[in-house]
Amino acid sequence: MIYLDYNATTPLDPTVFEAMTPYLREQYGNASSRHGFGTAARAAVNRAREQVAAAVNAQPAQVVFTSGGTEANNLFIKGAAAYLKPSQIVISPVEHPCVARPAHELSRTGWKVRVLEVDGAGRIDEADVTRALKEPTGLVSTMLANNETGVVQNVAAIAEQARAQRAWIHTDAVQALGKMAVDFTDLNVHAMTISAHKIYGPKGAAALILDKRIELKAIISGGGHERGLRSGTENVPAIVGFGAACELAIDRLTPLGVRLVALRERLERRLRGLEATIFGLGAERIPNTSYFAFPGIDGETLVVELDRAGFAVASGSACSSTSTEPSPTLLAMGVDPALARCAVRVSLGRSNNANQVDDFLRALEAIVKQMKRMSSLAV
Amino acid sequence: MIYLDYNATTPLDPTVFEAMTPYLREQYGNASSRHGFGTAARAAVNRAREQVAAAVNAQPAQVVFTSGGTEANNLFIKGAAAYLKPSQIVISPVEHPCVARPAHELSRTGWKVRVLEVDGAGRIDEADVTRALKEPTGLVSTMLANNETGVVQNVAAIAEQARAQRAWIHTDAVQALGKMAVDFTDLNVHAMTISAHKIYGPKGAAALILDKRIELKAIISGGGHERGLRSGTENVPAIVGFGAACELAIDRLTPLGVRLVALRERLERRLRGLEATIFGLGAERIPNTSYFAFPGIDGETLVVELDRAGFAVASGSACSSTSTEPSPTLLAMGVDPALARCAVRVSLGRSNNANQVDDFLRALEAIVKQMKRMSSLAV
Repeated sequence: MIYLDYNATTPLDPTVFEAMTPYLREQYGNASSRHGFGTAARAAVNRAREQVAAAVNAQPAQVVFTSGGTEANNLFIKGAAAYLKPSQIVISPVEHPCVARPAHELSRTGWKVRVLEVDGAGRIDEADVTRALKEPTGLVSTMLANNETGVVQNVAAIAEQARAQRAWIHTDAVQALGKMAVDFTDLNVHAMTISAHKIYGPKGAAALILDKRIELKAIISGGGHERGLRSGTENVPAIVGFGAACELAIDRLTPLGVRLVALRERLERRLRGLEATIFGLGAERIPNTSYFAFPGIDGETLVVELDRAGFAVASGSACSSTSTEPSPTLLAMGVDPALARCAVRVSLGRSNNANQVDDFLRALEAIVKQMKRMSSLAV
Repeated sequence: MIYLDYNATTPLDPTVFEAMTPYLREQYGNASSRHGFGTAARAAVNRAREQVAAAVNAQPAQVVFTSGGTEANNLFIKGAAAYLKPSQIVISPVEHPCVARPAHELSRTGWKVRVLEVDGAGRIDEADVTRALKEPTGLVSTMLANNETGVVQNVAAIAEQARAQRAWIHTDAVQALGKMAVDFTDLNVHAMTISAHKIYGPKGAAALILDKRIELKAIISGGGHERGLRSGTENVPAIVGFGAACELAIDRLTPLGVRLVALRERLERRLRGLEATIFGLGAERIPNTSYFAFPGIDGETLVVELDRAGFAVASGSACSSTSTEPSPTLLAMGVDPALARCAVRVSLGRSNNANQVDDFLRALEAIVKQMKRMSSLAV
């Protein structure tokens, strides 16, 4: 099996697994315990906090560890809304469901949700941000890189507009970290979500990077861990792995990016030859993601056939892959629903190479040809 | 170092680590992905769901995986309260902070918190439950076994009273599982929390066992995982480890209990000889926990001295061990605050033996003697 679904999750880097192993074995202490086992665990969490902060040019004290990106996004949106007087929350139409749903849930407590416009390539219309911010706005959340298209938003520019209107601005950078430079200070946001399992780290660890002047109400309360913002025994091995993965991500960022851009170009050159529609073209994209469709060829079916042929790809965001609705991201970009149902995502990663891309293209071409033949027979 | 703090956290059983390893290595798929990597992960999560359910005599469909016990307790209390008309929530005064705090936070949304009375051994006064339930009550949450004293509550009797008044009843069974029989059906509760890292499983996995007729509003929303009750990419390795740990816990329950009761008796016989006060005596306790105090000997200091001598014990619940306040559990039991500050907890586990208990007792006796000498010199 060739794995081409790195935006869904990544394999644990062997170095990361090695860093975690002591904490899965002999160093099993609860980081809140006062004895030697506890202080060793606490020291490991603190070191990881420094590694995570360094990877995004933040301060260790700005790192709030959570169990995942979904939790971190919920913590910011619900936690900030609980502190603010209800007003408007501004989001983009291409947000992950773990931003979009919490935002829409705020409408029960008097908030109004304003969804921004995006262009045909999936870029947020900055003029529409200006229009949206004419209404009193408490919160803005716009992602840095999209999980489906890989399209990168100009978050710093949106943050500037948001700050001018005294709104709190958050970005979901889960798909950006490790694939492009992610600088908390330069992005100028109040809060940012990053996650370990998208950067060759473990599932079970993520962080909300948070400007300490922002007050949040915890969604998980109890023993008062993470400065009271996230109670619960720290998942020490996963946090240690997150720290190690952050270091690796930064070390490898540039060479990996160069290699993946070349692989994607190899892929998309042929896709264009096969008359596929490629989404997000013309926009800045993270290097590893290609989202495309063959008109008339159902995306779900194509994923299943490719799986049978030994290639793991996605038909949309894995997080909502139990849904058969066309991607809301594509619909917001003005893609015809019939074409949106044909969408397939290839997201490349560290272990992929040109041979794998060529093998994938051969398999894809054969399957598409066969599916076209079958659909023409059916008519 | 001899570890005597199994209520804070437990080492990962080597069998559990082995069960997890494939999912930390080659089986890294996102359980929501449709390809082979994803379906393998989904199958592993489903198998763990069956193992967890079987361990507590519940149905797999009643298992809602969360990142930890704290999250599961928050999910029940906040999630149920969001569905119900505000009324009264009844809790005991010996609940873990991750039940007590969410309960008290409900007062902001119109709920009234009623804290039950406990006797000198820390047992909930069932007549006070009857009195409390005369007020219209939406929610009741009382723990099964206490993290500090090990005292076991008669949750089934409380559940019967709660159900008669149409209240939803939840129990935090985190410290009970693996130390006593925990039967979701017999306890007759609507919801129950259990956690992996207290039963030789990994940090990062826990479950709310939930009667499907109970409607909760998720506190973490997004992709709709766990029947919409807990969104976020499943922590597959931790969930697999949780399942494996549940199987082991049930297999070993009786022999381990017999062994630990004998070890604790060996410990407490000598503690009584040294004129220590033992808390919770006279009540039913889980087999592994001994909570005691030497009047005039500060608990925190004793923990530090014991750590230096090579023994890891706790002065209170690890989850709030950054606090220097006397234990609210002991205060509720009517223990004098001065004596409560002397409390030390030994919680035994699988790898402990009689030699270790004897070594511990020798060290304890020497340290207590020295501390008494020093305090008499100071006077």
